[in-house]
Amino acid sequence: MLSTSDHASVVSMNLFVALLCACIVLGHLLEENRWMNESITALLIGICTGVVILLLSGGKSSHLLVFSEDLFFIYLLPPIIFNAGFQVKKKQFFKNFITIMLFGAVGTLISCCIITLGVMQAFKKMDIGSLDIGEYLAIGAIFAATDSVCTLQVLNQDETPLLYSLVFGEGVVNDATSVVLFNAIHSFDLNHIDLSTAFHFSGNLLYLFFTSTMLGVLSGLLSAYIIKKLYIGRHSTDREVALMILMAYLSYMLAELCYMSGILTVFFCGIVMSHYTWHNVTESSRVTTKHTFATLSFVAEIFIFLYVGMDALDIEKWRFVSDSPGTSIAVSSVLLGLVLAGRAAFVFPLSFLSNLAKKSPNEKISFRQQVIIWWAGLMRGAVSMALAYNQFTMSGHTQQRTNAIMITSTITVVLVSTVVFGLMTKPLIRFVLPQPKHTVSMTMEDSSTPKSITIPFLGAAQDSEVDIDGHEIHRPSSIRALLATPTHTVHRYWRKFDDAFMRPVFGGRGFVPVDPGSPTERNGHHHQWH
Amino acid sequence: MLSTSDHASVVSMNLFVALLCACIVLGHLLEENRWMNESITALLIGICTGVVILLLSGGKSSHLLVFSEDLFFIYLLPPIIFNAGFQVKKKQFFKNFITIMLFGAVGTLISCCIITLGVMQAFKKMDIGSLDIGEYLAIGAIFAATDSVCTLQVLNQDETPLLYSLVFGEGVVNDATSVVLFNAIHSFDLNHIDLSTAFHFSGNLLYLFFTSTMLGVLSGLLSAYIIKKLYIGRHSTDREVALMILMAYLSYMLAELCYMSGILTVFFCGIVMSHYTWHNVTESSRVTTKHTFATLSFVAEIFIFLYVGMDALDIEKWRFVSDSPGTSIAVSSVLLGLVLAGRAAFVFPLSFLSNLAKKSPNEKISFRQQVIIWWAGLMRGAVSMALAYNQFTMSGHTQQRTNAIMITSTITVVLVSTVVFGLMTKPLIRFVLPQPKHTVSMTMEDSSTPKSITIPFLGAAQDSEVDIDGHEIHRPSSIRALLATPTHTVHRYWRKFDDAFMRPVFGGRGFVPVDPGSPTERNGHHHQWH
Repeated sequence: MLSTSDHASVVSMNLFVALLCACIVLGHLLEENRWMNESITALLIGICTGVVILLLSGGKSSHLLVFSEDLFFIYLLPPIIFNAGFQVKKKQFFKNFITIMLFGAVGTLISCCIITLGVMQAFKKMDIGSLDIGEYLAIGAIFAATDSVCTLQVLNQDETPLLYSLVFGEGVVNDATSVVLFNAIHSFDLNHIDLSTAFHFSGNLLYLFFTSTMLGVLSGLLSAYIIKKLYIGRHSTDREVALMILMAYLSYMLAELCYMSGILTVFFCGIVMSHYTWHNVTESSRVTTKHTFATLSFVAEIFIFLYVGMDALDIEKWRFVSDSPGTSIAVSSVLLGLVLAGRAAFVFPLSFLSNLAKKSPNEKISFRQQVIIWWAGLMRGAVSMALAYNQFTMSGHTQQRTNAIMITSTITVVLVSTVVFGLMTKPLIRFVLPQPKHTVSMTMEDSSTPKSITIPFLGAAQDSEVDIDGHEIHRPSSIRALLATPTHTVHRYWRKFDDAFMRPVFGGRGFVPVDPGSPTERNGHHHQWH
Repeated sequence: MLSTSDHASVVSMNLFVALLCACIVLGHLLEENRWMNESITALLIGICTGVVILLLSGGKSSHLLVFSEDLFFIYLLPPIIFNAGFQVKKKQFFKNFITIMLFGAVGTLISCCIITLGVMQAFKKMDIGSLDIGEYLAIGAIFAATDSVCTLQVLNQDETPLLYSLVFGEGVVNDATSVVLFNAIHSFDLNHIDLSTAFHFSGNLLYLFFTSTMLGVLSGLLSAYIIKKLYIGRHSTDREVALMILMAYLSYMLAELCYMSGILTVFFCGIVMSHYTWHNVTESSRVTTKHTFATLSFVAEIFIFLYVGMDALDIEKWRFVSDSPGTSIAVSSVLLGLVLAGRAAFVFPLSFLSNLAKKSPNEKISFRQQVIIWWAGLMRGAVSMALAYNQFTMSGHTQQRTNAIMITSTITVVLVSTVVFGLMTKPLIRFVLPQPKHTVSMTMEDSSTPKSITIPFLGAAQDSEVDIDGHEIHRPSSIRALLATPTHTVHRYWRKFDDAFMRPVFGGRGFVPVDPGSPTERNGHHHQWH
């Protein structure tokens, strides 16, 4: 046949697209369910499909596409992280910036060290085969990488804004740290670790954080400038939407090109675009970009979980494990335990440190909140999988016994942590942090987007000084007190700088409080989009 | 480096995304120019980039990505054709359905025969090497395939609705016919052509048209039904948008899976979706899908032309040609002449036939309009390229001299026809069909989308019975007269059937005339998207 050289790939694409549709419909039907979320639905559908394919193919293969790092890092991850940056509540995020950096950078290092040391001790007593120091450190880095995608699903930005910003922000920084750590392990000579190596490593990390963030900010500003300068009086929705998507993607790819952290770059590009660029375009572009980014991110998330579910049953990897199921179960259990311990080892001490620096008791992270932070960051996902594949399939595929055990253990940890920890997060939050849930869920249902992904009133409320949001009235603790006592002079200076220098050049709405009842911005554009 | 196994592919993706951005910005700046359009800008930028790469690589290679049929047929073509179906004026299209099918099916066969016969005569006198009958017929099929993408750029649906629907509709049917023809040439035994082969071929063609159309209609209806039934009172924009995009894509891939014409399928899926599904979703979903489809199509079009431009200078193909530049120029000229003659040979006779069947003089296609139809369908594009690559690079790559000459001639014909014919179409329309141009272009500039791609007031005016569109007031010829004398009883019966049976099940707005001044649909949703 002419148009498609490879019929098998067409079959698998059909199946994948059909399964994505099924996940969306099922996810919608299960929306009211208090345990499920879209990720777990997709994961379970993926596993079921894997079983069916395994039976149909006579036990030969369970997956249709080979797990590819490129697919994940080049196509699926950028829209998810960009959308998170685009829709994150910027005030909440920057208010907790120091804590987030502490958790994301220092916390990941602590977690990595604990997992490495634990694995070194535990594996000596098991029948695993010999691993060198680099491989132990790589295991630490692999299992220190949390899954920011799943965090987006289990925490709600409107119900628990402080926890969401802390855990998700940490997840973004953690992604970058893990990747840097993993690369550092491969590039440094690990037999001669001394103080200079440590300094070199910290320098690298700081340099990477700085350059990646700057690249993201600059791309965002460039897009705002181009759209503001070129499109005076001659707006065209399709060009604006295309430019925003392409420039966001370009920032990610440029970061990858320069061996920086594309995740950090595209996250900050999203923040800058939602602050400047988004306010320079027409109303229909605003509606379109907001929902397009959310939809892309939504589909990419479902795709990842479907994929991980189908890939989990790959028979080749499990062949070696079937000889010694005990070892594999023991390794997975040890790793799960170390993940729990490694996270506990930095969440509680660092929260204590962070609380020391804050004066008002309302700003401090309570012990109950610390428990949620600890629990909600336990999920391991596609980043861990990608790192594990990179580490353990390079030399001799999964034919070697040690590699096969490590790959299957990673899959086990990812599945168990996502399904078990993921399923239990929502009930745990309800148990640990009792809230006036009914009013919140009722106001949420009016929103036109799935709960898990977007925020209602993005334009109106997200960066206005007076955060009239309905939901926050119920919690008299952190935000209102902060607004009443504006100790954050940094934010005041930033606002002045933004009004005086940035907005004249790059546009944007600034910090004018918007009355949600009278959306003035829209009136002039009525004729354009019906 | 971890996250991207192949650094070269990251470099080329960066360049491609940056060039796409450049094309969009340049296309915007050149919008006022009466000669240029986005396709030609992209093609020229592609050629310039090709030259730069050729110089930088020391004459080794000019392209970054190898031309891949899969990339074109699986990722780039579906959004373009779907968007065309989604935004086409359905009344205009179905009113001319018979003429469109005549042009697309019979016209393509006539064109193919003339080109085949002409090539057989001409090549005997040239130093080309021996070709068998199958290869001659394949050349006929390759150069009978018009480029519907470029048509979208040079004709304006609002200025010349009759011509747009005829030429673009013909292009869609032509795509399907060419692909069927090309496959038939490869599967039939060409040394024993008799009447039964001809019947077999016609049967195949009709079966393919029917099944492809039905698949598209059914997928569209299924999406309408799912969204109508599942989402009662609980709309969620992201899920709706994702479902519409995925189901449209699924229809295309299913058609490809079953060896049908995905182009026809996705075109009719777009028509059905815009008639039913689009009216079942929320206002923000409507705005988002309309602009998302247009943006995807816009980016895919630019990508194709950029790609063809960069690929045109591939040095390997031109190596053989440099030995005998005369032959190559002669072949290209002969092919261009035959393309012109082949199209003239069916446009004028078939227009005459079509005019015979029409009673009202306003409905008839005037000679001036026939000239435009002839000219606007002369462009050859990516489908021709894909077919030529399929035919002439299978046996022995481009190493063989004949194959190399045919590939380079195809590139020459595509470039010349796109640039020369494409550049001259807009001026030709202005010369042959003088119109009150000023008022039209002024009303067009208010629209929020690029002229070449979308229609303003898609929701309000596209399928309402009373076509109050502003632009059509100026041409008292065809449309108003038709509306005054509704002879089309088929349309009346369809409307009754639609109101009685289809709309209760699949939703949709039906044929209620909408007053453009008071968009009633939107009022209930104000709170959802600001």
